[in-house]
Amino acid sequence: MITTLDDPQTPFLALDPAIVAANVRRLRSRLAPLGVTLRQHVKTAKSLDVARLAGDGPITVSTLAEAEAFAAAGHRDIVYAVGIAPHKLDRVCALRDAGVDLVVLLDTPEQAAEAGRRGLPALIEVDCDGHRGGLRPDDPALVHVAAALRGAGGEVRGVLVHAGESYFAAGDNALRRAAEEERRAAVEAAGVLRAAGHPVKVVSVGSTPTAHFATDLTGVTEVRAGNFVFFDLVMAGIGVCTPADLAVTVVATVIGHRPDKGWILTDGGWMATSRDRGTARQRVDQGYGLVAAADGTLLPDLLMTDASQEHGILSMRPGSPHALPDLPVGVRVRILPNHACATAAQHDAYHVLADDGRTIDAVWPRIRGW
Amino acid sequence: MITTLDDPQTPFLALDPAIVAANVRRLRSRLAPLGVTLRQHVKTAKSLDVARLAGDGPITVSTLAEAEAFAAAGHRDIVYAVGIAPHKLDRVCALRDAGVDLVVLLDTPEQAAEAGRRGLPALIEVDCDGHRGGLRPDDPALVHVAAALRGAGGEVRGVLVHAGESYFAAGDNALRRAAEEERRAAVEAAGVLRAAGHPVKVVSVGSTPTAHFATDLTGVTEVRAGNFVFFDLVMAGIGVCTPADLAVTVVATVIGHRPDKGWILTDGGWMATSRDRGTARQRVDQGYGLVAAADGTLLPDLLMTDASQEHGILSMRPGSPHALPDLPVGVRVRILPNHACATAAQHDAYHVLADDGRTIDAVWPRIRGW
Repeated sequence: MITTLDDPQTPFLALDPAIVAANVRRLRSRLAPLGVTLRQHVKTAKSLDVARLAGDGPITVSTLAEAEAFAAAGHRDIVYAVGIAPHKLDRVCALRDAGVDLVVLLDTPEQAAEAGRRGLPALIEVDCDGHRGGLRPDDPALVHVAAALRGAGGEVRGVLVHAGESYFAAGDNALRRAAEEERRAAVEAAGVLRAAGHPVKVVSVGSTPTAHFATDLTGVTEVRAGNFVFFDLVMAGIGVCTPADLAVTVVATVIGHRPDKGWILTDGGWMATSRDRGTARQRVDQGYGLVAAADGTLLPDLLMTDASQEHGILSMRPGSPHALPDLPVGVRVRILPNHACATAAQHDAYHVLADDGRTIDAVWPRIRGW
Repeated sequence: MITTLDDPQTPFLALDPAIVAANVRRLRSRLAPLGVTLRQHVKTAKSLDVARLAGDGPITVSTLAEAEAFAAAGHRDIVYAVGIAPHKLDRVCALRDAGVDLVVLLDTPEQAAEAGRRGLPALIEVDCDGHRGGLRPDDPALVHVAAALRGAGGEVRGVLVHAGESYFAAGDNALRRAAEEERRAAVEAAGVLRAAGHPVKVVSVGSTPTAHFATDLTGVTEVRAGNFVFFDLVMAGIGVCTPADLAVTVVATVIGHRPDKGWILTDGGWMATSRDRGTARQRVDQGYGLVAAADGTLLPDLLMTDASQEHGILSMRPGSPHALPDLPVGVRVRILPNHACATAAQHDAYHVLADDGRTIDAVWPRIRGW
């Protein structure tokens, strides 16, 4: 029996692998002339199948559950890019004992002492834009942490920077500046560590926006990016992609109408889309997402404007010249998400489209938990 | 080996069943003198164990996955309180054929015709406050939908109203008014249907806020509420509970500090808390949540103010007279969520606390998917 987008019960997550492949080609062809390795961040898709579509190679993970699942599938070169909590080191060591070159991240002397005591290699987290953790390149703690790590028996593998603020840097110039700032911080920190006598093999930078806008990566050895496989409306809003580049959509069914309010109700609520409202901070607020017909054609100015747990409300963008489309009860629509990482996390699997954009020819599971 | 809150790898979801039991006692003792049945909504906990703690009895579900799981565990009286999508009727019929009195919800002639053709009992959704779906009690469509349902062979079981706007009605008076408005709409709609010759056995109202503030439920047969088992900061913000009544918390570990910014970093990001920022619309914005020590004691004015996928940022409430607490790397904290339904949905299971508030003596799974 052939399954199409009309068959699975809604809501569910549809994945267009042709779009993923195009997104991957775009980033890989950008990075190749810059002389860096792509270390894809598997936190967005959390899928062995999507990682394979992205060309495999070294990976970044956001949880040890991801590291364990990818290790079980044969991956051997993994960076765990969240500052290590000491109680997780047993699982790190178990993976390393099994032959996986799993590298941890840290930025405090306490973490360095614990990781060093286990003889682990670590990247030191460096901050370039005040987004969350990491040490500034000129912070004397940088050398102290490196010394604590080596002194306790660990290995200073290198430095890692993530320009998290680039998600709010709209426009080509701002994105190029964010990429250069990320590179500069990483290279400067690597220089400080080398000057203090520490070998620095890895100089790792990355975020989906900066990976697409860096023009010079001198001194950098690898670029991390995760969201790029799927993209989303936040990325479209800052000019990194267009809505046509979005690879995952939530398929929902119309279950009612409120003509008095100009609403169409669906069975796709925040349980299916997540509560992420990333575009609310952008120039154009896309609500909970743009709405397309089942064939993928965008319905002009129709937005998912509100969400309950299992209800979505679709209505027209304020000021739109278009009329509310006629979508009878039972018709399916596809919601383009604000934030692919958050939306995909609401689902256990991807329904994978064939080349015709209608037939579903595989179901790919996602890795869950921590 | 005894497991305590210090043992599971973070982040994870802790559940205090003593608080659930107290929350349940409170609501059941409120409703008993009002002469109505409590039909608990299992969408919040999605757990057979939590439903048992809440006294079982008739239930409301938000997905057919919940209906199927509860039916498999012996539940026989279930309302599926999301407007029915016609393609889901096969699963509804399968449950009814297995002896479950599963009742669907609808508010359009199309749904009524489909459900009627299958001989199904249905509640007609009635709107009391313009929150999402449903027909106003004075809408002539109400009688048309009932006629379409019976004409096609179905059963008009009754009416269902949900005062969704009560989540935004702060203060006792506003909540009492919302409860009365919900009752009035339900009873009025039931009267209209009865006057048109339709039997109306069930007059169902409910939301956690209105269930706690209704003072007269004349004409109502049952009250639905879901969130009350756990409560959350949104409910505390409108005065339905206090932070001490919150039964689920996210346990996270401190992984770093940014003294220059007044930040404490944890390994509990939005993947663990959800992106729900329900208190952002309230008088007091609680960020991603209040923060307690591992023993449950609130840390005054400490909030989870920002979140990445696997990082939480804790900082002081602006204007607080308190200093940032000293929470070294490795220390565990507990985040009190904005919205229990959304936070719990990020997890596959509950770690259930014993009476000492520290020992974990069970792990209860959650129902996932649709």
